[in-house]
Amino acid sequence: MKRFLSPPVMSNIDNLSVATIRVLSADVVQGANSGHPGAPMGMAVMAHTLWSRHLNLNPKNPKWINRDRFVLSNGHASALMYTMLHLAGYDFWTMDKLQKFRQLHNPAAGHPESVFPGIEVTTGPLGQGISNAVGLAMGEAHMAARFNKDNFKVFDHYTYVFCGDGCLQEGVSSEASSIAGHLGLGKLIVLYDDNNITIDGHTELSFTEDVLKRYESYGWHVQHVSDGNTDLEAIHKAIEVAKSVTDKPSLIKVTTIIGYGAPKQNTHGIHGSPVGEADLKIVKEKFGFDPSQKYVVPDDVKAFYGKSLGERGAKLEEAWNALLGEYAKAYPQLAAELKRRTDQALPEGWEASFPTFKPSDPAAATRITSGNILNHAASLLPEIFGGSADLNPSCFTYLKSDKDFQKGAYSQRNVRFGVREHAMAAICNGLAAYGTFIPFCSTFLNFIGYAYGAVILSGLSHLRVLYVFTHDSIFLGEDGPTHQPIEKYAAVRATPNIHFIRPADGNEVSAAYISAIKSVHTPTVMSLSRQNVPNLAGTSIEGALKGGYIVADSDKPDIILVGTGSELHLCVQAKEKVNARVVSLPCWELFDAQPEEYRRKIFPSGVPVLSVEAGTTSGWSKYAHASIGIDVFGLSGTISDLAKHFGFTVDNVVERANQTIAFFKGKTVESRLDTLIFTQKPEI
Amino acid sequence: MKRFLSPPVMSNIDNLSVATIRVLSADVVQGANSGHPGAPMGMAVMAHTLWSRHLNLNPKNPKWINRDRFVLSNGHASALMYTMLHLAGYDFWTMDKLQKFRQLHNPAAGHPESVFPGIEVTTGPLGQGISNAVGLAMGEAHMAARFNKDNFKVFDHYTYVFCGDGCLQEGVSSEASSIAGHLGLGKLIVLYDDNNITIDGHTELSFTEDVLKRYESYGWHVQHVSDGNTDLEAIHKAIEVAKSVTDKPSLIKVTTIIGYGAPKQNTHGIHGSPVGEADLKIVKEKFGFDPSQKYVVPDDVKAFYGKSLGERGAKLEEAWNALLGEYAKAYPQLAAELKRRTDQALPEGWEASFPTFKPSDPAAATRITSGNILNHAASLLPEIFGGSADLNPSCFTYLKSDKDFQKGAYSQRNVRFGVREHAMAAICNGLAAYGTFIPFCSTFLNFIGYAYGAVILSGLSHLRVLYVFTHDSIFLGEDGPTHQPIEKYAAVRATPNIHFIRPADGNEVSAAYISAIKSVHTPTVMSLSRQNVPNLAGTSIEGALKGGYIVADSDKPDIILVGTGSELHLCVQAKEKVNARVVSLPCWELFDAQPEEYRRKIFPSGVPVLSVEAGTTSGWSKYAHASIGIDVFGLSGTISDLAKHFGFTVDNVVERANQTIAFFKGKTVESRLDTLIFTQKPEI
Ligand SMILES: [Ca+2]
Ligand SMILES: [Ca+2]
Repeated sequence: MKRFLSPPVMSNIDNLSVATIRVLSADVVQGANSGHPGAPMGMAVMAHTLWSRHLNLNPKNPKWINRDRFVLSNGHASALMYTMLHLAGYDFWTMDKLQKFRQLHNPAAGHPESVFPGIEVTTGPLGQGISNAVGLAMGEAHMAARFNKDNFKVFDHYTYVFCGDGCLQEGVSSEASSIAGHLGLGKLIVLYDDNNITIDGHTELSFTEDVLKRYESYGWHVQHVSDGNTDLEAIHKAIEVAKSVTDKPSLIKVTTIIGYGAPKQNTHGIHGSPVGEADLKIVKEKFGFDPSQKYVVPDDVKAFYGKSLGERGAKLEEAWNALLGEYAKAYPQLAAELKRRTDQALPEGWEASFPTFKPSDPAAATRITSGNILNHAASLLPEIFGGSADLNPSCFTYLKSDKDFQKGAYSQRNVRFGVREHAMAAICNGLAAYGTFIPFCSTFLNFIGYAYGAVILSGLSHLRVLYVFTHDSIFLGEDGPTHQPIEKYAAVRATPNIHFIRPADGNEVSAAYISAIKSVHTPTVMSLSRQNVPNLAGTSIEGALKGGYIVADSDKPDIILVGTGSELHLCVQAKEKVNARVVSLPCWELFDAQPEEYRRKIFPSGVPVLSVEAGTTSGWSKYAHASIGIDVFGLSGTISDLAKHFGFTVDNVVERANQTIAFFKGKTVESRLDTLIFTQKPEI
Repeated sequence: MKRFLSPPVMSNIDNLSVATIRVLSADVVQGANSGHPGAPMGMAVMAHTLWSRHLNLNPKNPKWINRDRFVLSNGHASALMYTMLHLAGYDFWTMDKLQKFRQLHNPAAGHPESVFPGIEVTTGPLGQGISNAVGLAMGEAHMAARFNKDNFKVFDHYTYVFCGDGCLQEGVSSEASSIAGHLGLGKLIVLYDDNNITIDGHTELSFTEDVLKRYESYGWHVQHVSDGNTDLEAIHKAIEVAKSVTDKPSLIKVTTIIGYGAPKQNTHGIHGSPVGEADLKIVKEKFGFDPSQKYVVPDDVKAFYGKSLGERGAKLEEAWNALLGEYAKAYPQLAAELKRRTDQALPEGWEASFPTFKPSDPAAATRITSGNILNHAASLLPEIFGGSADLNPSCFTYLKSDKDFQKGAYSQRNVRFGVREHAMAAICNGLAAYGTFIPFCSTFLNFIGYAYGAVILSGLSHLRVLYVFTHDSIFLGEDGPTHQPIEKYAAVRATPNIHFIRPADGNEVSAAYISAIKSVHTPTVMSLSRQNVPNLAGTSIEGALKGGYIVADSDKPDIILVGTGSELHLCVQAKEKVNARVVSLPCWELFDAQPEEYRRKIFPSGVPVLSVEAGTTSGWSKYAHASIGIDVFGLSGTISDLAKHFGFTVDNVVERANQTIAFFKGKTVESRLDTLIFTQKPEI
């Protein structure tokens, strides 16, 4: 430990800490012989400044609810994340885990995964983290507005983000940043690692816009630190200023050199490949480390982080706990509610009050029933919070109990996301990750195509998000094929850890919400009709919660008609002319999770199954021997013209049922449940 | 026709034309009792100014290659599109079609569809049109750079866009606009209808950013017309100025009143619902029209458009044809090439030169073979044009014959899209729609999740786009689950009119390119491996072009092993220990299009089928009685650890095959092709 290249603006211990971060990150990547050393080495001063001087965390209690949130949006810099968590003193993040970087079943995975302590959100797909962070900051703003009282700032923390050029090129971050500016989220602070290097080479190749000007246009406060490689005090000061600006989110552009200190610094050669053993020795010598040693954290650095972050954080939580104790005396009900929400516990008996429907109840579009039930749920559960991508009048997702969540009105629960589907989903992921929310959001089902990148991450990150998607088939009518989902059912059903629920009537909409709220580690995509559907005799909440069940039966059926959503009633009507069992299958994932015995009772051998659903037939052969569906794009037209054209009439169901019965007559009809699926079982 | 509300800046004929556009658009929506009258009424002056004074079109030849491109990005204003096409004198767009707005099988569909004359791109999903237009403008820039000569400006036209607030809120337009600014596309002119109204209400609810400042930050030239309701000359002048700025794209913000002239003007009540019969009478009186008449185009207006647009356009094309005649004399080869490209004809014998591979050829990642074959194809076909979303070194999609397509280097063919997957796909749609390109683009397969909104539109719009997607399974390894596609195969396969091709080796990569290039009306998504795969004995271009074929056979197989991509060789190796037929199924869509007889020969009754694919099992039951697949998210780890964990080893294939044989022993095994699918047939 002899000499340091950095100028004397940094104290010895800062210098040593920064060098440790650089060298350890590079060691971690080298050990795996895979990963991204350049960004961690370039962002080391940013990371050290933020973590040792600003970030309020208690590593002994990673879930402390008033902790600052830190998001590494450029998740490929994961080696930096694990390095900082180790330095900060998280018991979980042992050096052993860092040494097994990117190995199977090791939490120090290729990109940071939020199921592990200290990682707020899963990042890697660019632009998601910064967008999640907008949700985290909205979460803090809402909780503060709901729970804080004079002298009791129970919620009072910042959300910090590191991101790179890639994150800022993605449309999702543009959308989220525009909302963040609109909402004036003053406690959101983004440090942008401006290193001019991307995978293809130099940002000059494709990214020459004026980023700070763009963020100003969104209503952000912007700053620039021109030397992010050594000028710790400038970064520190910029963060101080950003904290003092309370009515705008802050972007701090920090110009750095990627792979700072390595022979290949400032080239894309250092972006996605290890430094290399030989070069790594040079790095270590440069920063005063012993080139023959690996994974070194000098005792001084350990001690410094123990004090500057660990002790500080522990004291902060201690003081907060004391504050909460006083708060509980002054506001016992609020404190109890706060505890319930941080525990993610649901109030006793909440399920019992969800409405049931009889056939005599008027036919209604499931989007409208959904709106009523969402409002009912929100009246029971203040953690329900969300909104629409500019489609409230169509999706019926406005909470009547509340007004708009806006700058100066953060206590309200209706978020106006604007026409920004991708950011909407990413923000809901952030809200769910915050820990005290059940976020929901809405648009037309077809526009999940815009948000798919974030929706999948809800599943991967085990986040309970309620996607209330309406206009779920060609039966939205005249808006035509650009708005009509065909393949979306199959796409969502094929995605792991997502429940896709397409309710047939009021009872099944109730079940959809109950299931969605209960599924703490799984997002739910609801698929709701624009058009009216009747309430059916055989439907039930209990049945629908099993994912599939018999709605109408026959002693010895010739065929099983299975339908979902707005097509189930066609099956029920067709039964009048066919000796059929009618099965409702609103959620494949819930059904597949039932015991085999139950599933085989629904779909036994010997009886052919005909599915009826106004979407792709793709996937149905797993249950059905025959399918009525749509394997082409939709068309613009009235509902009744479309029903005739695409074969969704009772007459056609009857005709196809008879055709199916005739085709399978005399043949052995094995249950399609006999299909053997060899795959890993889900963890949830 | 007595009086007009507009101030006298407009001439009588301009005034009358504008009124006609407003009233006719409103009539069209009213006739369907469905649609969006507000935007057409608000944009009438913009539309009239642009179409009558600037837009260079020949309605008698909608495909004239040097026409100006007009894109209605806010596609819900489709009534305006049809109104303008009718006024402009397109024979196809009869009043009868306008009167059947939004009825089944009528081309005047809910949103504009590019399969019909005069409509350049399909719009409706917000943000797509403006992003397509960036592709159209890039197309013009490249064609001009390649074909124009001194005194021969064969390509010399503008691309105009109308868009609304919604388009500018979407991330895809942010991405595309940033690229457009970077590239300095001087002939792209966007008129932004700033009417302050969205579906939810006022833009104040969610959209308060400074749009002009944002576009300046992208490097655009920006202007503002404060009265777009009546100030025709200001709009005209702004377009003139925009045309004169040759090194930057232009954004003209035109402030308008939505539904101008209707009692509900300036409210969201006029956005998505007809004006209403009573209010429509008021509108007609206000603009001097007979309230008892519908669908009126005054003779003066017809005559004016005939002259100002029709005759002008016809003369322009006539002059252009003369120019082209001279050009053909001076540059016969270039002219022949130009004709070939505008005819979308492929050079004779192009297919024959694609490489074949033998088992003795070295194993290679299909992404690398793809890079070689793409370069080969590009050497034959100058219409191949595209690039990567900042992943050239990983996706191998750089054309070595060329340099970067950049400002000042528009003749080059390598586009640097930056980290902007959604815009990349939307831009490729624009390039394909231009008519003289075979666009390609690349990223990791999993990030199709970011671009899905635009990829689906490739299929819907019948656009030949080559999506060269790599890193196509868990076998990308250490980057982990955020980067590993699981459900993407199923999602793309379920989408109409897209070929999803997952080649197993070199021969099948050749086939993938041949198929993609031949499929003039269908996009292709290629799914390519990061890791090496061997060249197999039984593969062939002809076989793969059928979508599925026998790679290795047995006299009386006990089982059929069907694989795709990097898992096919596991099946071939397993055959050494199992009495199996091995089928390669690189493209379901091509296979499903084969005659039934062929398909039944591949998958006959009596033999169980086991599929082996490193992705979701969802969808496979359509061919297979058993499946080895992955129905959970992936993991970070080395390839060999992942293979063991997820069961993609020869041993596991052998074990599962024996298990499958045992399970079906003694049972009747019906071919899964017996599944009855009742659906409309695709048109292509
Ligand atoms: Ca960078
Ligand atoms: Ca608007």
